[in-house]
Amino acid sequence: MNNSNDNVNFIVGDSTSIGSTSDTARLISNDEASTSNYTQFNKTSNYEHSDSDDLHGSHGIRRRHPVQKIEPGSMNMLSAKYESLDYDTCENHLLLDEERKRGYPFIVKKDMARWFIILLIGAITALIAFIIDICIEEFSNIKYKELKKSVDKYVLMDRLYIPYLLWVLSNICVVFIGSILVAYVEPVASGSGIPQVKCYLNGVKVPRVVRIKTLVVKAIGVISAVVGGLAGGKEGPMIHCGSVVAAGISQGKSTTFNKDFNIFQYFRDDHEKREFVSAGAAAGVSAAFGAPIGGVLFSLEEGASFWNQALTWRTFFGTVIATFTLNFALSAYHGHPGELSFPGLLNLGKMEPFPFQFYELPIFMLFGAIGGILGALWNYINYRLAVFRIRYISTPWLRVVEACMVAAASATCGFLMMFLLNDCRPLGEDPTKVPLQLYCADGEYSVMAAIWFQTPEASVRSFLHDPLGSYKPMSILVFVVCYFLLSTWTFGLAVSSGIFIPNLLTGAAWGRLLALGMQAIVPSMTINSAKYALIGAAAQLGGVVRMTISLTVIIIETTGQISNALPIIITLVVAKWVGDFFSEGIYDIHIQLAAIPLLPWEPPPLAHNVYASEVMSHPVFTLRTVENVGHIVELLRLVSYNGFPVVDPPLTDDAEVTTYKRLRGLILRSQLIVLLQNKLYNENANTSWPNLNVDMKIFRKEYPRFPSIAELEISEWEKTCTIDLRPYMNPSPYTLPHRASLPRLFRLFRALGLRHLPIVNDVNEVVGMVTRKDIARYRVWRHCGHMGMEELVLSNEI
Amino acid sequence: MNNSNDNVNFIVGDSTSIGSTSDTARLISNDEASTSNYTQFNKTSNYEHSDSDDLHGSHGIRRRHPVQKIEPGSMNMLSAKYESLDYDTCENHLLLDEERKRGYPFIVKKDMARWFIILLIGAITALIAFIIDICIEEFSNIKYKELKKSVDKYVLMDRLYIPYLLWVLSNICVVFIGSILVAYVEPVASGSGIPQVKCYLNGVKVPRVVRIKTLVVKAIGVISAVVGGLAGGKEGPMIHCGSVVAAGISQGKSTTFNKDFNIFQYFRDDHEKREFVSAGAAAGVSAAFGAPIGGVLFSLEEGASFWNQALTWRTFFGTVIATFTLNFALSAYHGHPGELSFPGLLNLGKMEPFPFQFYELPIFMLFGAIGGILGALWNYINYRLAVFRIRYISTPWLRVVEACMVAAASATCGFLMMFLLNDCRPLGEDPTKVPLQLYCADGEYSVMAAIWFQTPEASVRSFLHDPLGSYKPMSILVFVVCYFLLSTWTFGLAVSSGIFIPNLLTGAAWGRLLALGMQAIVPSMTINSAKYALIGAAAQLGGVVRMTISLTVIIIETTGQISNALPIIITLVVAKWVGDFFSEGIYDIHIQLAAIPLLPWEPPPLAHNVYASEVMSHPVFTLRTVENVGHIVELLRLVSYNGFPVVDPPLTDDAEVTTYKRLRGLILRSQLIVLLQNKLYNENANTSWPNLNVDMKIFRKEYPRFPSIAELEISEWEKTCTIDLRPYMNPSPYTLPHRASLPRLFRLFRALGLRHLPIVNDVNEVVGMVTRKDIARYRVWRHCGHMGMEELVLSNEI
Repeated sequence: MNNSNDNVNFIVGDSTSIGSTSDTARLISNDEASTSNYTQFNKTSNYEHSDSDDLHGSHGIRRRHPVQKIEPGSMNMLSAKYESLDYDTCENHLLLDEERKRGYPFIVKKDMARWFIILLIGAITALIAFIIDICIEEFSNIKYKELKKSVDKYVLMDRLYIPYLLWVLSNICVVFIGSILVAYVEPVASGSGIPQVKCYLNGVKVPRVVRIKTLVVKAIGVISAVVGGLAGGKEGPMIHCGSVVAAGISQGKSTTFNKDFNIFQYFRDDHEKREFVSAGAAAGVSAAFGAPIGGVLFSLEEGASFWNQALTWRTFFGTVIATFTLNFALSAYHGHPGELSFPGLLNLGKMEPFPFQFYELPIFMLFGAIGGILGALWNYINYRLAVFRIRYISTPWLRVVEACMVAAASATCGFLMMFLLNDCRPLGEDPTKVPLQLYCADGEYSVMAAIWFQTPEASVRSFLHDPLGSYKPMSILVFVVCYFLLSTWTFGLAVSSGIFIPNLLTGAAWGRLLALGMQAIVPSMTINSAKYALIGAAAQLGGVVRMTISLTVIIIETTGQISNALPIIITLVVAKWVGDFFSEGIYDIHIQLAAIPLLPWEPPPLAHNVYASEVMSHPVFTLRTVENVGHIVELLRLVSYNGFPVVDPPLTDDAEVTTYKRLRGLILRSQLIVLLQNKLYNENANTSWPNLNVDMKIFRKEYPRFPSIAELEISEWEKTCTIDLRPYMNPSPYTLPHRASLPRLFRLFRALGLRHLPIVNDVNEVVGMVTRKDIARYRVWRHCGHMGMEELVLSNEI
Repeated sequence: MNNSNDNVNFIVGDSTSIGSTSDTARLISNDEASTSNYTQFNKTSNYEHSDSDDLHGSHGIRRRHPVQKIEPGSMNMLSAKYESLDYDTCENHLLLDEERKRGYPFIVKKDMARWFIILLIGAITALIAFIIDICIEEFSNIKYKELKKSVDKYVLMDRLYIPYLLWVLSNICVVFIGSILVAYVEPVASGSGIPQVKCYLNGVKVPRVVRIKTLVVKAIGVISAVVGGLAGGKEGPMIHCGSVVAAGISQGKSTTFNKDFNIFQYFRDDHEKREFVSAGAAAGVSAAFGAPIGGVLFSLEEGASFWNQALTWRTFFGTVIATFTLNFALSAYHGHPGELSFPGLLNLGKMEPFPFQFYELPIFMLFGAIGGILGALWNYINYRLAVFRIRYISTPWLRVVEACMVAAASATCGFLMMFLLNDCRPLGEDPTKVPLQLYCADGEYSVMAAIWFQTPEASVRSFLHDPLGSYKPMSILVFVVCYFLLSTWTFGLAVSSGIFIPNLLTGAAWGRLLALGMQAIVPSMTINSAKYALIGAAAQLGGVVRMTISLTVIIIETTGQISNALPIIITLVVAKWVGDFFSEGIYDIHIQLAAIPLLPWEPPPLAHNVYASEVMSHPVFTLRTVENVGHIVELLRLVSYNGFPVVDPPLTDDAEVTTYKRLRGLILRSQLIVLLQNKLYNENANTSWPNLNVDMKIFRKEYPRFPSIAELEISEWEKTCTIDLRPYMNPSPYTLPHRASLPRLFRLFRALGLRHLPIVNDVNEVVGMVTRKDIARYRVWRHCGHMGMEELVLSNEI
């Protein structure tokens, strides 16, 4: 067996960087040279490739060419820094060994442990939601009560600038705390967390997204954002919190606290962890909206590639537990234990079923269209702001300053509206918690002050349930414009807050405005303002987030009225259609800005003429079945790849056969690291299959963060040893031939959640590797009725 | 190029029948012999296989051995007669060509056509549901009114046997019509159709399941079954109807009427058709239960392997259209157009939200457990009956006689209960359509007569909404026992009827009985009888069908009260757990009895030591890239396989290289048939790539039923021609190495909906083929806490 330390089985190729468009013809001829003993193969292969070149040259399909210049904020890039999750099981000898030892009783035990963990995830997520909710409610109460005292005191003295300054100051102080945490301690906790969770569920390893530290920052951040008066909601962050809880509990250890409870070790791999995280996200949705079914659908819509009945059923159990626990806790807190009247954080109040007539269907569609247009506009403004932030607001302290600025601006907006719009209503008719007289007559209170002196969630309730004539049209119009701009400015700040509530609020407001308009046009009509406010809210939210069935169910469950489903569905369908005509959903925009290689649902259309040989990265770095330690160390130090094909060793040292690389298996960087770390190698090169006492535990111990190669100390003597990789490698990885098309690659990747896919030639020799990034580079674009395919740039710089 | 007519590239192996357990060692050594020039490969390969044999011998996993004797009614068989759908796209030259010609505008057009077809599917399914509903209602009204007249007349004369005979006769006559149709015209229309649709969506080509003839028989059959007084429902058949509608509309042609509209031709492949059928099934559920969300979830739960957002959203659109259309039609029929108060066929009446206390949670669990046990019992009785039917009731006329017998028995049961149980209630308090005085005092009517003299659906409503004291406990108990037995006897008859309603009815009855019991034990408690009746109904149905999230949502949507979700969910979770402990769901039992190779959700656990080389069928029949017509014809006549690997032709006629079989692609029997039918071959063997004017249309023209090889006339001269298969074959089929494990095979099959999977050795030579049946043979069994894996027998006899 060849035991020398040289690089003989590296393919010495050109230094083409990964992901740059490769020249098919050149590559194929290279491969053919290496297999020149197969004349027959060459003959037919040439035949086909000449044809594919022909197709490729004249396909007549509009295809954008890759952008060469990388600009910050460009949507045409993918970052090379994101790794994928290993969803595929490595069926190596150790796994077989473990299965044999444990047998079916272990399967049953594992299954019961899964149900138990889901129960814990549901309950703990709900308790966190409970704590966040109570904190927000209590702190907001204190804040607005103090402000009211101040206003009541100074309004008579005509020194309203004092409560104004007080308001601005309190906003800034509270937001400052959350913003500092987010900007300096854990930037991944910013925003709603839904894009990050979506990426994780899609299979992208977003760094630090499911750590306990992130959870703590997120929880404090969302309290500070809402109490600080920003136009943000607490629902999106709940989804993120649920995911972190799931990841933490299912792994039975915490990296943040460096504590290992030594439980649930058998769930320590990416596959199991991802399933729990998807259940956690569902529990988060469920707690946020009181929507157990919507939660399941959310995690399916965002996370599932493969619908699995057992997983869905368990997830459903988790969401029910979450809703139930939260309901119980909130009911008990509000003094009605056992009544169970607080199913979720988002409480829109009791909606009545609203009957509707046929002539209203076009009205619902119109609302949907308006929502789609306004949503696309919201997304566009937010996108421009995000690009601006990437370019100019790049340091943490600038981000903190911006957050504080927005907090001040929110207070200013509110104050100006209260001050300038004199919209009064008699007291007692519709009690608000902090009624402010301001300039109103005695026995009246300022409507605008009531809207601003409460949490956005309470304002949504007001717009839904207050009688039709409660607000002057002008007040609503100004409010819509202000809040629309404020909310789009807020999303993307260095604070933790979501966009559900602000968009529902904006939508409810313009829905009510349109209802007033209709009333003015057809005075004989009896207008149900709650109906139109709700439809407007749904339209606006649907136009921004573009979620499909899960959003529909969430809204239905939140309002607690299934009989209102049809109007809501029609509105959401139209909103999505119209919105998609102009732009993508806000989450997708942010994912693209972050250059995350998310895989969409379907392969790009008309891409059957893009072949694996174009998509794959090459040259490929391989290891032999029995490999020299020095060589492995060198390879790991040299390249940053995470998976290496294991190939048959060459027969001799003869130079001609050094490229002999018939695929035998696939080994991951993390596995190699563990092997080196545990010194599982043999001095004597002829003893293979060295250590049968090794089991899966050594791989699980380090999961999920394995040391880097630089952290390992390998002596010169050790470098002369060998490792037999066969017991550890995945002996039968999925592969595809180099002539496979992009849609075929895509489907295999998407359906099985792959991370690496070796591309082989006709005699099963590795000629390249495809990773998620190589596939995600090919993206379909649609814009105003046109469509095409574009190739994104893969960059290490972002 | 070798153009002789001999069998040189058949591997002449032993005549091992497909699916019998193959001897791994022997197979591998065969393969190795054929690749004996790769000494290095052999060396390592032997190494590994000796190990795998070791594993195999001593795995310590309980594994049932295949049953050798085939008995009718055995659950341990798979029928070889079921073929699979071709879900994988064949990316051949023709497809590329078509894509290139049509470009993106065609993609947009196709997408819009999809939405339009879904709209039609939803609307037409709803109209069919409407017609069925109206027919059942009107005919039942006439029947029961006439019977009432007769009873009223003869009860005074003490000659009640006359109305009894009339009842029996009317039942038998009506059931006879439906039964004759089902037994003689279209046997696949029997039962609820859900098992058949489930199999189709899973990828099994159940013959004639989506034909228009089936739809007609089903519609008439379900009307006759319900009007004929059988313990069956109209909801399951609606799901089947929706599927047929979808298949018919999306294909733009009807085989039954031999009519081709020449529209939507581009949807004529198994992949597209299956997607439409899944939307149709969803529309059927939606129309049956007024449950648009439940419909989507049903088709996902039963059909989806890959969750696709766009498909889900379109399906949702279809279900909403179905609910809306049906609602509109029924409302208009009942004289309230525009009121939209009839969302689905199953109308349980308006349920109030019921508040519940914590101490009730254990009660819900208890109900769930009872439902699980009763459901398992129901399934067991039905299973024994089904086996009895397979053995002894094998001819159509016997099946008709049995159906008529059950119809008579139903009437007898009802009559005896009315006659013997004297349970009276004052008139007017709770109006029933046909109040019967019978032996009651004046101003009173017989409660049992009211229950029996209406459709089962109306009886469910009575049990849900009548006040607590309406029924005597004894009446309910007798009713439960009778109806339980009747309904389990009815399912599986040669009539079209479902099991939702009968089980809801049984469950509602025992739920009410338990409520009465609780009232008797704790008289101080105020018992909401509707709540317990509903919970009982859910528990009974859940215990029988074992559907998960979709059933939950269907029940929630049907009752129109989302606030009752938690009790229903808890009940259903427990019912499924308890039921699964004893047996499988009723649909799975019937699928197993029919020996259909359904793929479950997950691979059997602990099956990593079963290798592809064991699972695959071999020897494998291959074709050369440029193949002789005579050889193709001979092969198609000789074997019944549906997919053939295309391999490189041997270099010479030398015997040593005749087994050279490097994989180049995969071609289907249907493709070969079309090639032969259209005489797409060349006289001159050296001209390859013969006809570039051929396009996809010739393959779509014959879809879905291609002529058999026996129907083609091939002259002796033609047999000397050659076909170049390369433009038609799938050039890059998914493959796996022979050392891949069963779970790996399974996941690839399940996630991508494969039909054929060539198994290759280390140098990419085909050594076997795996089909759905080969995978479905390995099944996990669970029974009373034990589990294991069993190998089913694959048989041509059933």
